[in-house]
Amino acid sequence: MGKHIGIKSENKDFALIVSDVEANAAAVFTRSTFCGAPVILGRELIKNGRAQAFFITSGVSNVATGKEGMANARKEMEAVGRELGIDPDNVLPNATGVIGVQLPMDKILDAITGCKEDLGANNWESTAEAIMTTDTRAKLIRGKVGDAVLIGMAKGAGMIEPNMATMLSFWVTDADIPSEVLQSMLKRGVDKSFNLLSIDTDTSTSDTVAILANGQAGPVDFDLFEEVFVGAAIELSKQIAEDGEGATKLIEVIVSGAVDDKQARTMAKSIVNSPLVKTAVYGADANWGRVAMALGKTFDERLDPDKLKISFGKYTVYEDGAPTGISEDPVEDYMKKAKEVVISVDLRLGLSEATVWGCDLSEDYIKINALYRT
Amino acid sequence: MGKHIGIKSENKDFALIVSDVEANAAAVFTRSTFCGAPVILGRELIKNGRAQAFFITSGVSNVATGKEGMANARKEMEAVGRELGIDPDNVLPNATGVIGVQLPMDKILDAITGCKEDLGANNWESTAEAIMTTDTRAKLIRGKVGDAVLIGMAKGAGMIEPNMATMLSFWVTDADIPSEVLQSMLKRGVDKSFNLLSIDTDTSTSDTVAILANGQAGPVDFDLFEEVFVGAAIELSKQIAEDGEGATKLIEVIVSGAVDDKQARTMAKSIVNSPLVKTAVYGADANWGRVAMALGKTFDERLDPDKLKISFGKYTVYEDGAPTGISEDPVEDYMKKAKEVVISVDLRLGLSEATVWGCDLSEDYIKINALYRT
Repeated sequence: MGKHIGIKSENKDFALIVSDVEANAAAVFTRSTFCGAPVILGRELIKNGRAQAFFITSGVSNVATGKEGMANARKEMEAVGRELGIDPDNVLPNATGVIGVQLPMDKILDAITGCKEDLGANNWESTAEAIMTTDTRAKLIRGKVGDAVLIGMAKGAGMIEPNMATMLSFWVTDADIPSEVLQSMLKRGVDKSFNLLSIDTDTSTSDTVAILANGQAGPVDFDLFEEVFVGAAIELSKQIAEDGEGATKLIEVIVSGAVDDKQARTMAKSIVNSPLVKTAVYGADANWGRVAMALGKTFDERLDPDKLKISFGKYTVYEDGAPTGISEDPVEDYMKKAKEVVISVDLRLGLSEATVWGCDLSEDYIKINALYRT
Repeated sequence: MGKHIGIKSENKDFALIVSDVEANAAAVFTRSTFCGAPVILGRELIKNGRAQAFFITSGVSNVATGKEGMANARKEMEAVGRELGIDPDNVLPNATGVIGVQLPMDKILDAITGCKEDLGANNWESTAEAIMTTDTRAKLIRGKVGDAVLIGMAKGAGMIEPNMATMLSFWVTDADIPSEVLQSMLKRGVDKSFNLLSIDTDTSTSDTVAILANGQAGPVDFDLFEEVFVGAAIELSKQIAEDGEGATKLIEVIVSGAVDDKQARTMAKSIVNSPLVKTAVYGADANWGRVAMALGKTFDERLDPDKLKISFGKYTVYEDGAPTGISEDPVEDYMKKAKEVVISVDLRLGLSEATVWGCDLSEDYIKINALYRT
């Protein structure tokens, strides 16, 4: 369930996701060393691999709030546990929003009282809305694995270059999966999806991806489940990039022919994070020189300018050590019209490949972040 | 000397700096693995520690131009050598501007013929203008060491996070300094100035800092000379940050109390490069939570949120694990009015300190880079 309780001035800001029974659970968190109270607590709570509810408020992040912030998160756990009649230690508290402000506990505790009545089987959309901050739309996805369903949601539009985890993303399934299996699946899946996403190179203090598996639908094929999860997580990652602060286009960067995975990822991230590449995409300018620059600034990675190939969409613009001389008109037309601009680089050095996602950089990113406190 | 020869549509684009006699010389270049022909040639030319002239054109960078680009740079050296009656191998060619376009050699060779007449002792200003691209003003500095003078200039406003060297910066002195001493001074000095500067995290393919020392003024005290050089290079670095693409404010970040220099620099760079910190400064928002976030995302560096202190100018906003509760009005007033916003962080972990320079991020950075090909 998701509703508005007045932490933010207008939009939904209170979300609760509950399993009918105690469930296996797994989570990964931000690697930030300046992380919030919910992350510190969450790391402890998830250790036993069990949980029953995710509680999320948006508007204030409960980061840099000291002992009072920790105590407030515990109060939330206790209140939710009491309201739902479940073990408080099975409630994972989360918060997203401004850093350095205490949670408005009166409003939150008031809203928890009686919230059980708002719970229902089908209000995923309003839950996904309630975890949003500068997002312009909810990100929700559903999948099926055998008899089990998998539902995932995510939020995040700025301060996004997840590491080990991402902004906030919550998943539930009724498949029966042991928590150790769940945890390693989650970790691998996040590495292949959210960790390949960057909107602005800034890593949040609150990144969390968590999943509940309550087993009600019985066992599933683990490999199949992981495949569905990874596909769904990639889809949510792309939705996040598309909805990046001020974004007008999704950018997908594919680096192939790398000597190893590390090189492929480092170079792909260098391109997708370059402000000059991002502004070129915004301006629909097929400025491959900036892609070359972004490759060159990964100083310690091998590069052979005479071998590599750079393409925008299906148009190869640089190859064999020189511009291909292709007419710029169709390329810029593609960049103007495509909602998803694909930049491919073939290094022709090895067999590894990586795909990462990001977005263009527009005046609106500046406006959102210069004029509003987030 | 500097003049307009038509590589760019309007502004000066042709510069020549010549010593009366062959001089000791030193240079450092970009670490980009996708570097331009002038950088590849320059590395070879400077090895013997001797040079007599710096030749610079702006508008086209001669990067990603293959064998033709290398041949063109050599043609420039020969033409300048012939015109001035000096050894072509003592002419360091440089170019800055668009990547992937061949130099307009007809225009350049035409302009070299007869350019000797334009040389004069006092046209440093027009020379510094002629190396500009998106810079809005020339960056020039003069110093004195004993009987010797030191003159330096630099250009660069975007694609600026120098590594090992910076955009283009040229220095001349009539002090007598052996080239090995000159090279190590230059390297150390650049590490303390240009390498601590970042406008947009993008590292140019053409970064070059070079110096000529022709000895005409006789010997100088080396330590004193280095001190003057470092001070002047820091001043030019700050001028570059101040004139960053779209910048309205210079940002100086000081991280002290670090366990070692690496930590101090990594954290200071993380703050000055964060788009969220940069947009907050642009919006005069004393959003120290974003400074905390930028510290936290240097994952492998030690951080104790309960010990550290964050200040904007003289105003301490976070200390002892919590906001200080200082009124935001004077802080935001400071951020609105200061042309140079100083962000200080005391980690209280050790004794190392680093200062870095950057600029805020405004809509104009987007406009400059989305709408114009640079």
